Amino acid sequence: MKTIGRLGENAFVAALRRRLPATASVITGIGDDCAVVRVAPGCANDLLLTSDPVIEGIHFAPDARPEQIGHKAVGRVLSDLAAMGAKPLWILIDLVAPPRTPVARLDGICRGAQRLARRFGAAIVGGDTSRGRTLELHAFAVGRVPRGTAALRSGARPGDAIYVTGTLGGSGAGRHLAFTPRLAEGAWLRAGGWITAMMDLSDGLAADLPRLLAASGAGAELRADRLPVSPAARRPALDHALGDGEDFELLFTVPARKAAAFEAAWRKRFRLRCTRIGGVTRRTKGGLVLIGADGVKRMLRVRGYEHFRR
Amino acid sequence: MKTIGRLGENAFVAALRRRLPATASVITGIGDDCAVVRVAPGCANDLLLTSDPVIEGIHFAPDARPEQIGHKAVGRVLSDLAAMGAKPLWILIDLVAPPRTPVARLDGICRGAQRLARRFGAAIVGGDTSRGRTLELHAFAVGRVPRGTAALRSGARPGDAIYVTGTLGGSGAGRHLAFTPRLAEGAWLRAGGWITAMMDLSDGLAADLPRLLAASGAGAELRADRLPVSPAARRPALDHALGDGEDFELLFTVPARKAAAFEAAWRKRFRLRCTRIGGVTRRTKGGLVLIGADGVKRMLRVRGYEHFRR
Repeated sequence: MKTIGRLGENAFVAALRRRLPATASVITGIGDDCAVVRVAPGCANDLLLTSDPVIEGIHFAPDARPEQIGHKAVGRVLSDLAAMGAKPLWILIDLVAPPRTPVARLDGICRGAQRLARRFGAAIVGGDTSRGRTLELHAFAVGRVPRGTAALRSGARPGDAIYVTGTLGGSGAGRHLAFTPRLAEGAWLRAGGWITAMMDLSDGLAADLPRLLAASGAGAELRADRLPVSPAARRPALDHALGDGEDFELLFTVPARKAAAFEAAWRKRFRLRCTRIGGVTRRTKGGLVLIGADGVKRMLRVRGYEHFRR
Repeated sequence: MKTIGRLGENAFVAALRRRLPATASVITGIGDDCAVVRVAPGCANDLLLTSDPVIEGIHFAPDARPEQIGHKAVGRVLSDLAAMGAKPLWILIDLVAPPRTPVARLDGICRGAQRLARRFGAAIVGGDTSRGRTLELHAFAVGRVPRGTAALRSGARPGDAIYVTGTLGGSGAGRHLAFTPRLAEGAWLRAGGWITAMMDLSDGLAADLPRLLAASGAGAELRADRLPVSPAARRPALDHALGDGEDFELLFTVPARKAAAFEAAWRKRFRLRCTRIGGVTRRTKGGLVLIGADGVKRMLRVRGYEHFRR
């Protein structure tokens, strides 16, 4: 029998996407970090919609601090909004909890969620609660960008330079519970007209970059010696930087002719590290080429995190 | 130790509500069927946001047909939008499933969700998927109303007549999987200026009407012999009509002076039953008075469904 575990998330979502009809108010549907929608033709803003689950045993361990759980639930959807260059507006949270859950634990979760939302000017305006076997949060967020300006995955062109913010790898060492969604950086990148494509890194560079490339109909060469490996990443560091996932950093492309000006502008505006890790190429058969420190090229297998398959 | 099971959903949500700050873009936050928000001061529309979980073993039995599960997930959020008089726009769905789940089952769920969404002109535009121990859907919906016209729970005044659509009770006999969200009725009630307060019946009249009364600062007298009991409700029928929950009918109030004109207009527009079941009174100490067929008044204990407590 064909199960979701065998089929995998990518194939399931692809099938779903083919089935859902396009409608006039939907600018971009399933397949980007957020859906892009328009309330009415004359609106000055497009809205961005996104949702993410945060489930005990999957997205956090049973001994995670409650504030961190709330932080992660809000942080995941804010990171999706950051990846579109959006300003966050409103958040709803569905809370599922076993009846034996201490109220103090739920209060801590709400505190962590509320603190991060407030820091970025988002309002938690509702949600729902239910009994269940596992402690879970499902966050839904709405953001906005000026009409027609949302940063999509689909605009990368051969010759563009590829960048990531921050450092990669080491999510298992606790970084996945304490990350900062890159909202200021995402909005600045979008508004400055620097980027051709953008997404956030949730499943690991080796899983996420191929999605950006597929949406753009392009390939890429990555320089292994340029990857900004987190000090928290275990050995072999390269594997962890490529495959750990939950970095919640931004991955984006900039036309090569703008690269020098972009890097200067970034350094003037942000202290956060931003690293050019490779370049976009024409679409290649195998997908992604990794250039080792020794100059040897090899095809990169897609690793990273895919739900259902383990 | 204080657990969520002992505290109960109502007290937890009330505490949460006190803690969340008001912001300018939020017209109505936690506590109504949807949050009411405004993208910018000049917008012609207000947006309505709502989310609801549908969890195996809680909201549907393991042997429920997949199409019905998808129908219920979309139906619950559409019913929330109906309760505000809104037009539905977009839906996101978070899907949680054990890896052993057959793809055919998930396809059936998506079919049921998609069919109901399309019927009411809503577009499913995204969501997320995750492994988990239990099959779950978390739907999130956005709707709109002309600015300042959302139907709230808080406008009922002493003297108003209380109405419900359809019939009550019998959700256990399968009605909870096959209901029609009352979107046409809700939008008509709002646009016609008939109503002073409205909500949908999800937890049973005896649990939901007190919420509308609390929001309005009022009491009520219900006529037991007027309650439109569903043929599917078991004996004692009155108890089931008051407490089964998941009727997904509309509960609303109309000023008494408009009642006759309203009832005539309703009959001209809809074939669906609409029943005057009592009247709003000043706030009373005990809450809700039930007038028996024998004319004897008694205070009604809040029953109905409350999550966490069983």
